[in-house]
Amino acid sequence: MPVPHQAQLVWQDAELAAIFHYDLHVFDSVAYNQTLNRITPIQDVNIFNPSQLDTDQWIRSVKAMGAKIAIITATHETGFAIYQSDANPYCMKVLKWRNGKGDIMRDFVRSCRKYGVLPGVYIGIRWNSFLGVHDFMMPKDGSQFQANRQVFYNHMCEGMTKELMSRYGDLAIVWYDGGGHGPELGGPDILPIVEKYQKNIIFYHNSQRADIRWGGSETGMVPYPCWGTYPFPYSHSKNQAIVFKCDNQLLKNGDANGAYYMPAMSDSPLRGYKGRHEWFWEPHDEQHIYPLDDLMKMYENSVGHNSTLIIGVAPDNRGLVPDEDVNRLKEFGDEIKRRYGIPLASVSGVGNMFSLNFKPAVKVNSAVISENITKGERVRSYRIEGKIKGKWRILSSGTCIGHKKIDTWEPQNVSALRLYIKMSEGKPYISAFSAHRY
Amino acid sequence: MPVPHQAQLVWQDAELAAIFHYDLHVFDSVAYNQTLNRITPIQDVNIFNPSQLDTDQWIRSVKAMGAKIAIITATHETGFAIYQSDANPYCMKVLKWRNGKGDIMRDFVRSCRKYGVLPGVYIGIRWNSFLGVHDFMMPKDGSQFQANRQVFYNHMCEGMTKELMSRYGDLAIVWYDGGGHGPELGGPDILPIVEKYQKNIIFYHNSQRADIRWGGSETGMVPYPCWGTYPFPYSHSKNQAIVFKCDNQLLKNGDANGAYYMPAMSDSPLRGYKGRHEWFWEPHDEQHIYPLDDLMKMYENSVGHNSTLIIGVAPDNRGLVPDEDVNRLKEFGDEIKRRYGIPLASVSGVGNMFSLNFKPAVKVNSAVISENITKGERVRSYRIEGKIKGKWRILSSGTCIGHKKIDTWEPQNVSALRLYIKMSEGKPYISAFSAHRY
Repeated sequence: MPVPHQAQLVWQDAELAAIFHYDLHVFDSVAYNQTLNRITPIQDVNIFNPSQLDTDQWIRSVKAMGAKIAIITATHETGFAIYQSDANPYCMKVLKWRNGKGDIMRDFVRSCRKYGVLPGVYIGIRWNSFLGVHDFMMPKDGSQFQANRQVFYNHMCEGMTKELMSRYGDLAIVWYDGGGHGPELGGPDILPIVEKYQKNIIFYHNSQRADIRWGGSETGMVPYPCWGTYPFPYSHSKNQAIVFKCDNQLLKNGDANGAYYMPAMSDSPLRGYKGRHEWFWEPHDEQHIYPLDDLMKMYENSVGHNSTLIIGVAPDNRGLVPDEDVNRLKEFGDEIKRRYGIPLASVSGVGNMFSLNFKPAVKVNSAVISENITKGERVRSYRIEGKIKGKWRILSSGTCIGHKKIDTWEPQNVSALRLYIKMSEGKPYISAFSAHRY
Repeated sequence: MPVPHQAQLVWQDAELAAIFHYDLHVFDSVAYNQTLNRITPIQDVNIFNPSQLDTDQWIRSVKAMGAKIAIITATHETGFAIYQSDANPYCMKVLKWRNGKGDIMRDFVRSCRKYGVLPGVYIGIRWNSFLGVHDFMMPKDGSQFQANRQVFYNHMCEGMTKELMSRYGDLAIVWYDGGGHGPELGGPDILPIVEKYQKNIIFYHNSQRADIRWGGSETGMVPYPCWGTYPFPYSHSKNQAIVFKCDNQLLKNGDANGAYYMPAMSDSPLRGYKGRHEWFWEPHDEQHIYPLDDLMKMYENSVGHNSTLIIGVAPDNRGLVPDEDVNRLKEFGDEIKRRYGIPLASVSGVGNMFSLNFKPAVKVNSAVISENITKGERVRSYRIEGKIKGKWRILSSGTCIGHKKIDTWEPQNVSALRLYIKMSEGKPYISAFSAHRY
């Protein structure tokens, strides 16, 4: 039975992560348009000038949400590296800002360490508007020139990978968006470099390896069930006809019998409400910060569905997370704690039946179940029953539990609550069955 | 009658200039191959590490030759800018060398000022192996992406032009190799920027303006006659069917009746002897430094043909002009002085006949004639006669004089030497008719 390796366990236990997007166009005073951004180089790199940059403030803002992992875009689609790269000349070295010595990656990692948040890095190599790279590739004009530039670019990406994997200590995750187009596709050979320098990391992802899979949307939610197991060793770098079928169904649901442990991520930008979906800061997007209710729905449909939720936080052109975002993140963290922080009661163990007894009866509207996933996702079918006025009534039922399942129902006065596991692969290891009321 | 403007006068009076080529591939330990260099990006920009850089030494080496103007390649075909550019991120800012603060353009100009040599700059924008530019153009794959990158690149070239024209004081020349592909051809609009910041500069060149013209070869020589006048306001950016006809005959000879004053340059690398022609330093090329005799032949067939001679000097990977080159440049300068430094006698004035008398008779083997070109190139036909044993004998004859004509013959004992101008456009203004023996 597939089980998580150490980094996957950390990842699933983290439950909440944040990703910070930061790139040149935050400063361009033009409304971000991803399609245009990918094909339009930024004329003046020195627009990048976060005069009040404070990565401590970034990390505090997401720690307040409860994030255990924070990820930063070392490069995104302009190709600009927000650190002191030797491999990629288009980096902070060229800036007037901080006299060319700025290194936001370094500052970010330091802030993470300071606040006990695990740092991770996103490396965008699929697009590079500066160098003319589109979907990993130099212009396909058939020339030897562009073929040579592809070799250069691949080595440059490998060089950045080495720098980012070797300079900043242990990282929780390295995220190649769109995948790290491997050498078999004419791309860089990044995996051996990651594996050389980071022994205990979430690698996401290429056709050779993926430790998590895309959850099939950017809604911050996965449907139910969302098995942590998956039939392929890669997320969606190959077999796309199968993987993407029926609106990414396989990515979303996983496969209870999959041979690989590869849990789904759920990601969403904080600013994704009402017609916007912005990973990057833009002025006047404050009204598009998700309301608390939406965020709680995300939480319950991601973390509560055996998936880690990654919230996109967008520092502004001052170099700060705006107050509105900071406040919402804190509200979100507070509400998670209020609902799911301290249970009314909790039990753990090995077996098919777990009971919580209340004297006197208490009002309960939620249960949280966790399997000990170091033993694999064993549960195949379960139900939760409440003893209401002396009679057992089914309050909830399901299939997959995995790292965490949250069930909610209309509040009921119960004198007992029990979890009955009807079917499992081997003995079920339940690390927590908890009752909540909110 | 076309006459030189102030910068052209300075240029022609300079007679000798040097151009220093310096770029990333000096450090790549690979034999330079221009065709490959243009289409092969340098993987590691930090190979650029001239640990003993001494631009004072560069300038001393060419001052010893007699150069009045020294030019440096601010960018060449890799696209790397050897100064602190804000417009072009691929510049010295990205280097480990001098902690990213190096600026060879600045050092070079300072050294020029220190030694009383006029600085000039070469800006290569036709090729850029880093950004994928070939013959001024981004890849022609028909995409909007590459069209946008062309706009970016053109603005970047304009930005570099502004930086180089505005940051380093007055420059003697700006040299866009291969021409500054103008906006009418989809290229940058550089001329207005040059004209805004440099009121008194040799602009070389685009289809709108050229203050000198290419001499039609890189031999360091022009044939005779080589009129300073030319029928077009550009060198060879247009009308190439005419300009390049018969092995660049029009560029080489000019046109006595041309409406534009645009003297021909003569350029050659110092390391161009016996099967090599190297503007850049490469190891083991010392045996390809031109012998003194070849250099003197160049001098007499360039400066002595109304053209300014530009010698290419190649600093090595230490950042120094190698001793062998330094020595040869000094020998060259010394020999020019020995032959043409102090005349046996000299005369100037307005008219058709100029005589030098010697008592007793002296051995003479050369005469140097200069027109006052602020009055235009007026002489159309002349001859030099020597009085040998009481009889006038023709020693030399020609058509064009212009800034300088050097005639040589087998040494003769003469009691007088005279210049007779047989034909001219208006009165001839002769600023010097000098006799030499060497």
